[in-house]
Amino acid sequence: MRTLVYLIGTGPGAPGLLTTRGQRCLDAADVVIHDSTVHPRVLDLAPRRAERIDVGRPSREATDQDAISYLLAEKAREGRVVARLKMGDPFLFDHGGEEALFLHEQGIPFEVVPGVPVALATAAYAGIPLTYPAAGDTLTIVRGHEANGGRLKVNWAHLARTEGTITSYGGRDELRAIVRGLLDHGRPDDDRAALVLHTSLASQQTLTGTLADVAARLEQGLDSSASLIVGKVVGLRDHLRWFDERPLFGRRILVTRSRHQSGELVELLEGAGAEAVEAPVLRVAPLESFEALDAATDAVAGFDWVVFTTANGVEAFLHRMMERGRDARAGRPAALRRGRRYG
Amino acid sequence: MRTLVYLIGTGPGAPGLLTTRGQRCLDAADVVIHDSTVHPRVLDLAPRRAERIDVGRPSREATDQDAISYLLAEKAREGRVVARLKMGDPFLFDHGGEEALFLHEQGIPFEVVPGVPVALATAAYAGIPLTYPAAGDTLTIVRGHEANGGRLKVNWAHLARTEGTITSYGGRDELRAIVRGLLDHGRPDDDRAALVLHTSLASQQTLTGTLADVAARLEQGLDSSASLIVGKVVGLRDHLRWFDERPLFGRRILVTRSRHQSGELVELLEGAGAEAVEAPVLRVAPLESFEALDAATDAVAGFDWVVFTTANGVEAFLHRMMERGRDARAGRPAALRRGRRYG
Repeated sequence: MRTLVYLIGTGPGAPGLLTTRGQRCLDAADVVIHDSTVHPRVLDLAPRRAERIDVGRPSREATDQDAISYLLAEKAREGRVVARLKMGDPFLFDHGGEEALFLHEQGIPFEVVPGVPVALATAAYAGIPLTYPAAGDTLTIVRGHEANGGRLKVNWAHLARTEGTITSYGGRDELRAIVRGLLDHGRPDDDRAALVLHTSLASQQTLTGTLADVAARLEQGLDSSASLIVGKVVGLRDHLRWFDERPLFGRRILVTRSRHQSGELVELLEGAGAEAVEAPVLRVAPLESFEALDAATDAVAGFDWVVFTTANGVEAFLHRMMERGRDARAGRPAALRRGRRYG
Repeated sequence: MRTLVYLIGTGPGAPGLLTTRGQRCLDAADVVIHDSTVHPRVLDLAPRRAERIDVGRPSREATDQDAISYLLAEKAREGRVVARLKMGDPFLFDHGGEEALFLHEQGIPFEVVPGVPVALATAAYAGIPLTYPAAGDTLTIVRGHEANGGRLKVNWAHLARTEGTITSYGGRDELRAIVRGLLDHGRPDDDRAALVLHTSLASQQTLTGTLADVAARLEQGLDSSASLIVGKVVGLRDHLRWFDERPLFGRRILVTRSRHQSGELVELLEGAGAEAVEAPVLRVAPLESFEALDAATDAVAGFDWVVFTTANGVEAFLHRMMERGRDARAGRPAALRRGRRYG
């Protein structure tokens, strides 16, 4: 029985955080059904021929969710391979469980491809380990972005007194409800906390301070969902930040080279912290007429210098000379070309 | 400043669960320093030229850990690129934070590559979503395999009464301490629980039942670390299990084809649930003498049938004919070869 639906966790946004299994399943996809929270650069990894369907933001409303489950089943029944892409991981505060259950009921074979949860990606890219020997023996992840406005059923009194780290990923209302729940139940407002937006992207923003600082920042509103981290581990960021200290961090750099020549530059830029956007506006192509070039190369021995402005020029020039049965020696005086030496 | 140490989370064991960023950093490695818990198939993804150093099991003993941090720094100071491989994620109950802090103090540039945590991989491969709408609004991950025998500082009374899911990954002693802590503090012993060994591998074993069942199983001992999941979500496995229901699940199959021909078969086997072990014992090579083959092909028009036993045979035969300026038409009567028709 061929797998027809892949429920794939794609990580936080940086395309390199997709797993190789996720990429392989995506390669096989005829249809890509994704939340609007999946980063466009991740969608770029899907085959061009695949149909793409954006089903909006994850929501707790059952009606929206049922419509998505039906859509998955419908496409699969057409015999098409469906890649269902989700931010983070499909089985952590996402609707992966509900979708898998529906597919099971419909007898449609599926596979679940786990992903890097936003919580762990935030930890890595903000330089805040979610656990540390002296910072408690538990990590509690609280429902965030699918809690629709923060209607949470949490024993706040217990959570506020946990010694371990607390984290969540959600919109302003959800995170505000969590911070409020903690403060109202005795968590000191000078406890360490962090708020991280656009995790793993060149636009990542990280605020660290006290729980009161984070509460104040949330009052100003957020332009996207964010990660909240509460606990002693936040203090480690001063020492462990690496991502947003790279020399080109925060810069989006357009790479206009032709696609097959951009790889090395993109890698160098990304290694230095930049977000490289590939927009190949150059195309290296042969001349339509070689007349002028051929005339010049026929007379090349009469020049003292041949100056090239790009590596592509060197390549194209030599290629044309070879085609015409000549090589770089054509530029030298005839005596040398025949192998004789001066003096 | 070139990054010299990559702290890479490699996921639970299945090599496909490494991220593409992790693979890229591994490709650049001169030295691979890994815990013994990293699966050999993941180590196979490192370049052949890289030095490999096994630093044993993760442990909470500070002396062992310091030795590892020094080793990372020492190799980096030689100007070599170090891939520090960890099971799961480096910042979730692992020593990634301590190692990063040491590297920072030594002024050695590092990058943290997050990985799929064992908890989420277990969820995916056992078919147990860690969260579900009606199963609480928190997920609590408890320190496991680095807790050295279960000396945990946890508010058990609070944890036992959480409505959300509880999970951990550790050895028998650590998991026993957690189950005991929950039961002693009022968690009903008929609550749903699961124990998963060898997550994501063909040897995966999954026990589901009550907390009492899991406690009994732990008394029998474990041959490796395991994932523990406690919560209502465990009940979903009956509907969502897919990995260990595949027709070839649990089989390790030796693929003896030559390496460049094994890819498709490996993919089919893995898709059907098998673990494919590539052990190329065949090598397709040209004959040392073509004398007999050439004699036979010169006389090929005299045969009614030419029977090939493998696709490789067809390829080699046609290749040799081409080399000698002939093609498949050599087998037909001369009249047809010249393009004439019968009748």
